[in-house]
Amino acid sequence: MSLVKPVEYADANPAVKAVYDDIMATRKVAAVNNFWKVLAHDPDTLARTWEEVKAVMAAGSLDALTKEMIYVAVSATNGCEYCTYSHTASARKQGMSDAMLAEVLAVAALANKTNRLANGYRVPVDQAFIPQF
Amino acid sequence: MSLVKPVEYADANPAVKAVYDDIMATRKVAAVNNFWKVLAHDPDTLARTWEEVKAVMAAGSLDALTKEMIYVAVSATNGCEYCTYSHTASARKQGMSDAMLAEVLAVAALANKTNRLANGYRVPVDQAFIPQF
Amino acid sequence: MSLVKPVEYADANPAVKAVYDDIMATRKVAAVNNFWKVLAHDPDTLARTWEEVKAVMAAGSLDALTKEMIYVAVSATNGCEYCTYSHTASARKQGMSDAMLAEVLAVAALANKTNRLANGYRVPVDQAFIPQF
Amino acid sequence: MSLVKPVEYADANPAVKAVYDDIMATRKVAAVNNFWKVLAHDPDTLARTWEEVKAVMAAGSLDALTKEMIYVAVSATNGCEYCTYSHTASARKQGMSDAMLAEVLAVAALANKTNRLANGYRVPVDQAFIPQF
Amino acid sequence: MSLVKPVEYADANPAVKAVYDDIMATRKVAAVNNFWKVLAHDPDTLARTWEEVKAVMAAGSLDALTKEMIYVAVSATNGCEYCTYSHTASARKQGMSDAMLAEVLAVAALANKTNRLANGYRVPVDQAFIPQF
Amino acid sequence: MSLVKPVEYADANPAVKAVYDDIMATRKVAAVNNFWKVLAHDPDTLARTWEEVKAVMAAGSLDALTKEMIYVAVSATNGCEYCTYSHTASARKQGMSDAMLAEVLAVAALANKTNRLANGYRVPVDQAFIPQF
Repeated sequence: MSLVKPVEYADANPAVKAVYDDIMATRKVAAVNNFWKVLAHDPDTLARTWEEVKAVMAAGSLDALTKEMIYVAVSATNGCEYCTYSHTASARKQGMSDAMLAEVLAVAALANKTNRLANGYRVPVDQAFIPQF
Repeated sequence: MSLVKPVEYADANPAVKAVYDDIMATRKVAAVNNFWKVLAHDPDTLARTWEEVKAVMAAGSLDALTKEMIYVAVSATNGCEYCTYSHTASARKQGMSDAMLAEVLAVAALANKTNRLANGYRVPVDQAFIPQF
Repeated sequence: MSLVKPVEYADANPAVKAVYDDIMATRKVAAVNNFWKVLAHDPDTLARTWEEVKAVMAAGSLDALTKEMIYVAVSATNGCEYCTYSHTASARKQGMSDAMLAEVLAVAALANKTNRLANGYRVPVDQAFIPQF
Repeated sequence: MSLVKPVEYADANPAVKAVYDDIMATRKVAAVNNFWKVLAHDPDTLARTWEEVKAVMAAGSLDALTKEMIYVAVSATNGCEYCTYSHTASARKQGMSDAMLAEVLAVAALANKTNRLANGYRVPVDQAFIPQF
Repeated sequence: MSLVKPVEYADANPAVKAVYDDIMATRKVAAVNNFWKVLAHDPDTLARTWEEVKAVMAAGSLDALTKEMIYVAVSATNGCEYCTYSHTASARKQGMSDAMLAEVLAVAALANKTNRLANGYRVPVDQAFIPQF
Repeated sequence: MSLVKPVEYADANPAVKAVYDDIMATRKVAAVNNFWKVLAHDPDTLARTWEEVKAVMAAGSLDALTKEMIYVAVSATNGCEYCTYSHTASARKQGMSDAMLAEVLAVAALANKTNRLANGYRVPVDQAFIPQF
């Protein structure tokens, strides 16, 4: 059970309804998922977070699928159950196969491993890796 | 200064030299970076980690650039200075532009933000996100 | 199910009972929550942790509500389900409203985001931020 | 050295200059700190992050000092060197004394400790802590 | 429910069956646990991870019990529910008592606490702690 | 530079001096390291933390070396530079060799890797791992 009461569409104020409508139109879905219903008790954070998701996750220099896979790797690293389920679902919608998920998580797992080897041994950064401006 | 003494090529035993040679040949570089020199005091971990990096980071279902960008996003999330510098350098070699780095970090930053909103409100996972087998 | 058996009041030894009595008296509650019952299998850690909670969470330079909100922000950051539920409940007892919780989590989420932007870009610390003694 | 070149005021495009001007006017300072100069290579993230900082960190249900102290606690938890220095400086500007910083970090440290005791023992959440709607 | 379908022994291909057989023979158990069944959808990661677990967790300079306890401390730190349950079970098989688990978690909790005090105050590293080679 | 001024022995009040004396006597060293000098600006946290370190890190069901190695593994996981240097030094004093450090970090790195595979795939906990009381 969430720590604040989720806001259903029927009970939402106009500002919240406008965000819900935009989420459903943008994603071509018939309902919003729990994350947004819970955020909706704080309409400013709801609107700001949705605008950020829409802008940051849209195709740009990187395509939308690559972005969703980065999201999955970060969420697995942080142990966020909700985001792991929801962004794996989003990535699958964008075309991620089981084989691609396997590679996303193999890279994330390897990075988590070598991050600790580098930090644990306090490896000094090679000069060659430091940009010169 | 690292917590164990780095092993220079001239001082390396044959097993370590073989790994160094393979790293330089695979990456077409003239020397190995500090991470490997420090790991070399433990030749088993050196060999195992290099084999894993070679296998996991090679192009597969995902291309090598996408994998390097996932590595950067995870290393930024964990705050690993060494890996952030070294894998940003690797990703740039694979073709990552400043604009692409900006999107990698914008996605990683957003995921770190929403991971805490989802965990902080304890948002229940939507049934629709849970696979049915 | 916890990894060691919780200790109920009736089964507790005198040292554990003394801690339980002090928790109930200090908090004006009729029973101790699961965290303490599980810690009780290790009476030294139980006593030391309770003394620390009592001293650190009491009003000082900061009031008790501010301290509970910091606790919630850290627990959300670490993804600790138990502590998120229990310290949100404590903060509400101290007067935290839904609107205040929304601001606590919005700040925590923002900090988690900018922490990764700063770490991911390896932004150098401005001299002006470094104290001179 | 940061991983992208910081943008100085004199070299900034009009969109970046507008953000810099707003930061300096809002904070009544004569220059922007490195975080913004580095973000400026990505003007969208710069503008979006500044708008979020301005909105989220302003006094609301919580005062601005409380928000800065939550920021410090989260940054210490994540080990972000840049944000720890910069937000400790901001909190001091808002009136945080050494004694208050001591309490912020004592609470953050305690939360980090008990988060691991709760997670390590897998303590089940008490029913009393779960909201009923 | 896991995000990919677990592979049961009867449905496994020969490469996966060979790993399952080796896990069961090495550990003298009649079935493999869910972690391996889920990894099995990616046979390369399954084989590589099992070889690493077998090599790294075997007695060497450290005995196998000490290694399992380090694993528990790290898993509690990261909040990994699965690994906390599974490696506590492994450590108990190797002889870890309730009293030893209490000390593992008390040390892990203390380290998590002092890590944040050191990071939060930005304590400079003493020269005496830095190796001279 | 630390965020509060370190307290040198000559400038310390009697309560702080008493802790410094106890640290030096217990560890048979001629001076206290920076961590304690920085904590000393908050004498209550100084005294409480030192008492906890003394009690938790002393030999009990686990010997002191094992405890120091767990501390190193957790500090590497959290990326705490100060604690990684200081507790590696402490572990070496207790007898940790380079080979033992290599195994500590190989286990910590492996746990960090599998923690993310388990969390990323959302592997369900096997019933066999859940204690029955």
